[in-house]
Amino acid sequence: MSKVYLVGAGPGDPDLITWKGRKLLTLADSVLYDHLASEHLLELTRKDCERIYVGKKKAVRAYPQEEICAMMIERARRGLTVVRLKGGDPFIFGRGGEELEALAGAGVLFEVVPGVTSPLGIAAYSGVPLTHRSHTKLVTFVTGHDVAGIDWSKVGQSETLVIFMGIASIREIAQEITRHGRAADTPALAVRWGTRPDQDTVAGTLETIADQIEEAQLKPPATVIIGEVVALHDRFNWFEKLPLFGQRIVVTRSSDQAAEFSERLRALGADAIELPVISIQPPLDTSPLNQAVERLASYDWLIFTSVNGVRFFLDRLDHSKNDLRSLKARICAIGPATRRAVEGLHLKVDLMPEEYVAESLV
Amino acid sequence: MSKVYLVGAGPGDPDLITWKGRKLLTLADSVLYDHLASEHLLELTRKDCERIYVGKKKAVRAYPQEEICAMMIERARRGLTVVRLKGGDPFIFGRGGEELEALAGAGVLFEVVPGVTSPLGIAAYSGVPLTHRSHTKLVTFVTGHDVAGIDWSKVGQSETLVIFMGIASIREIAQEITRHGRAADTPALAVRWGTRPDQDTVAGTLETIADQIEEAQLKPPATVIIGEVVALHDRFNWFEKLPLFGQRIVVTRSSDQAAEFSERLRALGADAIELPVISIQPPLDTSPLNQAVERLASYDWLIFTSVNGVRFFLDRLDHSKNDLRSLKARICAIGPATRRAVEGLHLKVDLMPEEYVAESLV
Repeated sequence: MSKVYLVGAGPGDPDLITWKGRKLLTLADSVLYDHLASEHLLELTRKDCERIYVGKKKAVRAYPQEEICAMMIERARRGLTVVRLKGGDPFIFGRGGEELEALAGAGVLFEVVPGVTSPLGIAAYSGVPLTHRSHTKLVTFVTGHDVAGIDWSKVGQSETLVIFMGIASIREIAQEITRHGRAADTPALAVRWGTRPDQDTVAGTLETIADQIEEAQLKPPATVIIGEVVALHDRFNWFEKLPLFGQRIVVTRSSDQAAEFSERLRALGADAIELPVISIQPPLDTSPLNQAVERLASYDWLIFTSVNGVRFFLDRLDHSKNDLRSLKARICAIGPATRRAVEGLHLKVDLMPEEYVAESLV
Repeated sequence: MSKVYLVGAGPGDPDLITWKGRKLLTLADSVLYDHLASEHLLELTRKDCERIYVGKKKAVRAYPQEEICAMMIERARRGLTVVRLKGGDPFIFGRGGEELEALAGAGVLFEVVPGVTSPLGIAAYSGVPLTHRSHTKLVTFVTGHDVAGIDWSKVGQSETLVIFMGIASIREIAQEITRHGRAADTPALAVRWGTRPDQDTVAGTLETIADQIEEAQLKPPATVIIGEVVALHDRFNWFEKLPLFGQRIVVTRSSDQAAEFSERLRALGADAIELPVISIQPPLDTSPLNQAVERLASYDWLIFTSVNGVRFFLDRLDHSKNDLRSLKARICAIGPATRRAVEGLHLKVDLMPEEYVAESLV
């Protein structure tokens, strides 16, 4: 049955999509996806699924809104199952309503699959309960992207205030809110790439947050949470305290095992990038691997899990613009044979875990 | 690694839990679950997983909050992986913050897995974009459960206002909001059991909604959405228009096939209850099946998919307080042998689909 499914991809961590959204991705004939939807999710689609990036590039949409709608309608009419994958939730600053208007107008069947909207993900992964019995009975979500006409004398008094895309205008907003009576020492938290391994947070107050964001050079897109509940962040911030948080790790391994191993690393907070040893031919699939090799200098750990992994890594490296000099990461080898292969390259092994489990890396 | 995972179960439809939450349920040694978390999700847990209901019964908590926390801490200290499963999202009116305080105080490791908070589910499944470029730049979530101290002159002006547990106090709230300047003809929507096959909606305006809720005898818990975006519900309400929406269907079938068949029925909007023909011994697992037989009178369709299914159904029926007289549902038989078995009971078959696919039921 041909339909368009408007699916929320969740806040960033690809594991935070709903089970329903995940199932639909595996069934889709065509996926139109946004900038903020994790590319990891596209790996769930069928090999023959059409994948179209319709997000923004440097504030300019790859496709205008009307064209996105036209593409969906045309595909649904051809009998295809179309997934429109949006960052967060389709109905919270996701322009889902506008797209439904086009679909309904064209008589195309649709369904809407909600997602974890990004502030909920940010709240969970930075330890900030948006409501709390002793602090707040209400929470307001507002966009900082287009603030014309917003009455901060009312909005600003919301016990918990979440500002989407808030950091470009945070100085002005914080001043307005304070001017209308909110205490200058109200806690405030800015979060970029929330729920992802590169989550970046800046904690301060209404008075200090704009300066702190500038100082930390935190760039958009980022969300700002304002309210007493933010004070709990210090105590409840479990994610950034995970043992491998912030570590970027390349895992070379035959594909199935790599997935399991990477998942363990991710559960410990790491950003695991897989370089499978089985070569995949379509350029669409090799480009992320090549990119990983090209960004070699930015990784903290390089883990070789087999001799094949070493060989494959060299092959990729030789085809890239980099060479072994770009390698800054510490090297981990799993097993003595892998160790010998690494040492054959005149590289030292920094770590060889006793047991082959992710935890022994810590 | 022993930890407590505070997991949002999502808004009701069990497929709307996150993939991460689903994985954790399959790993858990112990699950403490709330009233509003779908019981279907418990079917994902291991056979030896401990499942403790800690929700409310008739407004009285099965366990006081302190006891819930004590149970989690005790289990984590024993080295167990504990999932605390909460309806919606743990940090939006979920008391997640209070539970983290107890865990942090006891030095127990924890993680928080966000969920689709119920209004996002309701919005998606009732076709109400909570934000919309031409209607609203902000949305406020407030609890209607405890409204003391809420300043409706400010809150009530939020372009989209979502009131959790809102129907008990909706008359008072609507009056307050109108008195402070909100137009009496602002659209309002009350939704009970949103995203579930028994989703129930009442649409009106600020002026009429309280009377309409009374008239429709809509009971708590229910959520109320107020704002211009509610007017889009008529056009975007895809869920209640699914071909089998509101139909309660009993499926008898050997277990694996039943799951697939039920899933197809659910995708068409039906409430499919499985009565597997393979008897399961533990009382924990048979009780839902027995309940289904006991509530026989409330189903719209009874689908027999095999002769074994008929036999098993009779066995269950004979052990219940009901008999064939309680059966009000229309009967569908899959295949001629099943049809003969049904007719042998002196029952007429209302439908025998040409093809064995869920769609042919429509």
